Amino acid sequence: VLREVAGAVVGREPDTIALITHPRLLAWYGRPVVDALASAGLKATVVTVPPGERSKSLASAGRVLAELASGGFTRGGVILALGGGVIGDLAGFAAAVYHRGARFMQIPTTLLAQVDASVGGKVGVDLKAGKNLVGAFLQPLAVFADTETLATLPRRHLRNGVAEALKHGFILRAGFVDRLLQSRRRVEARDASVLAELVAESVEMKAQVVAEDERDLSGSRARLNFGHTVGHAIEAALGYRKLLHGEAVSIGMVAEARVASRLGLCPRHVPEVVERALEEYSLPVTLPPDLGPEQLVRLMRADKKTEGGKLSMALPREVGSAELVKGLEPDVVRQVLREMSRHA
Amino acid sequence: VLREVAGAVVGREPDTIALITHPRLLAWYGRPVVDALASAGLKATVVTVPPGERSKSLASAGRVLAELASGGFTRGGVILALGGGVIGDLAGFAAAVYHRGARFMQIPTTLLAQVDASVGGKVGVDLKAGKNLVGAFLQPLAVFADTETLATLPRRHLRNGVAEALKHGFILRAGFVDRLLQSRRRVEARDASVLAELVAESVEMKAQVVAEDERDLSGSRARLNFGHTVGHAIEAALGYRKLLHGEAVSIGMVAEARVASRLGLCPRHVPEVVERALEEYSLPVTLPPDLGPEQLVRLMRADKKTEGGKLSMALPREVGSAELVKGLEPDVVRQVLREMSRHA
Repeated sequence: VLREVAGAVVGREPDTIALITHPRLLAWYGRPVVDALASAGLKATVVTVPPGERSKSLASAGRVLAELASGGFTRGGVILALGGGVIGDLAGFAAAVYHRGARFMQIPTTLLAQVDASVGGKVGVDLKAGKNLVGAFLQPLAVFADTETLATLPRRHLRNGVAEALKHGFILRAGFVDRLLQSRRRVEARDASVLAELVAESVEMKAQVVAEDERDLSGSRARLNFGHTVGHAIEAALGYRKLLHGEAVSIGMVAEARVASRLGLCPRHVPEVVERALEEYSLPVTLPPDLGPEQLVRLMRADKKTEGGKLSMALPREVGSAELVKGLEPDVVRQVLREMSRHA
Repeated sequence: VLREVAGAVVGREPDTIALITHPRLLAWYGRPVVDALASAGLKATVVTVPPGERSKSLASAGRVLAELASGGFTRGGVILALGGGVIGDLAGFAAAVYHRGARFMQIPTTLLAQVDASVGGKVGVDLKAGKNLVGAFLQPLAVFADTETLATLPRRHLRNGVAEALKHGFILRAGFVDRLLQSRRRVEARDASVLAELVAESVEMKAQVVAEDERDLSGSRARLNFGHTVGHAIEAALGYRKLLHGEAVSIGMVAEARVASRLGLCPRHVPEVVERALEEYSLPVTLPPDLGPEQLVRLMRADKKTEGGKLSMALPREVGSAELVKGLEPDVVRQVLREMSRHA
């Protein structure tokens, strides 16, 4: 897939090109793309940022934008975002605001970014007050997900992506959950063709939801937040350390499926199926020891989606179906979380 | 007009409100608005920034965004931008990217912002590499131009706004130029009703051009850049000091009208009418002594709108009509600028 990037870029007839990536990814995957573009007569402005969530800041965006300007990048140009979710969000935001809007393409190199983050057009950076508080909606011209780049991805990061892929199955298509479980060994062995099928189906599901509600207004897109109300609170409580995003969402999905079941919004087997599937992939399903239910509920209430002390969650109705539920009493959530800490 | 702001805000049913302004404007005009909102049960988060172009930076936007977050401002909220062009551009940019897009209203307090900057939805901040290099398109929900706020505006800043108003006449409506010249004394005496008519007609003309080509793609909106190719180069050469924006544009309009006349694109009387009208308002029509034609042409070539060493300009065809012309030879521009420095 990476070999197709240069051709696709040339086809868009950009005035200028920029590649935004991490230093190591530049050496591994970026150089061949830059060289192929050079052969086609297009010189790319290369901008590298350090790996890690700290690069997803306004300060970092400012440095990227300044390097784009000094490299002569134009508003008619195309930015290539080569990396995981941080690079995609940062480079996409830079594209959204450079000269009031350039274009970009995603080349995601983690499973999480391939199945989820690179699709949907949400781009942005963090503030100290919270993640993704600054940003824009900008659809990439194209997404090039090459599952061969996953060969070097640590197993824990592979499972991190599986968590979001399973989520798409839980909320949209029960059969996809089954397929993921049946092909677990080949996924964990990084079989490129099995991974390619997994990524393709996951992206197709997410793209359909996004197409229905691009700007996140009707509640349809909000279904993608299954596991994220609790998951975000866990991440914030841990200072975005210790757990990866997909791991926090994994615990969050178990918690939220139990909330749904307790409220009678879904049958009892739903939280069981969710939990078993995540455990099959060795994803965490219990609260980390130091996190108290009180602290988590407080963080959920401070979240941008809260209204009047009540909570909002995307809750399952069945395996393969979900809906946004507003006005949830914190008490039910508190009880479920208490139960999940005792199990830990 | 200021008395109508609170009611208009309440009518939009925002979750939260923020007011972004300078400390002095907060005391003069902001407090009554904040108090009126408080009476209606809406508490505004007030964010102040120092006056001056330096506040139009990404660092400044970052501070504003952090204060919005800590003040509990929400994506369903409305930002009020109270001030001149810097405040409008900065607050509008903050609105465009906060939680991927909040809404805003403009309350321009300079003539330049009332006749020009507050209309059209171009918002953004500067980079060290150049002005307005980072930004977005976001139309304000409403613009409240109260000409009574101009009572405290220094005369030089009043004329600064007249330059852009005259520009609208030069490119769109010759009769408006005549009306501005006939009412010069009352404009300079800050007659609020004459100013209100001037602002209303100027805004109506600009809004029509913007509606035709909101994203600046067809060349129609680019007509608003009359005087700005040369004007921006003059501002950059002076390090954005000494001349106000409208003053640099005034010199730029004389230069560009002469370029058009020399190329046979407009009759000879056009540059004469342009120059005489600007002089009537004591606006500068000759190059500042230290600026060389060579330096200015170099800066124009480095501008984001250049293609292959040739220049683009919005040039008059008649008084009241203009068009975007691309591929201009720098030589003609150099000759005109040389002539204008000898006159100085």
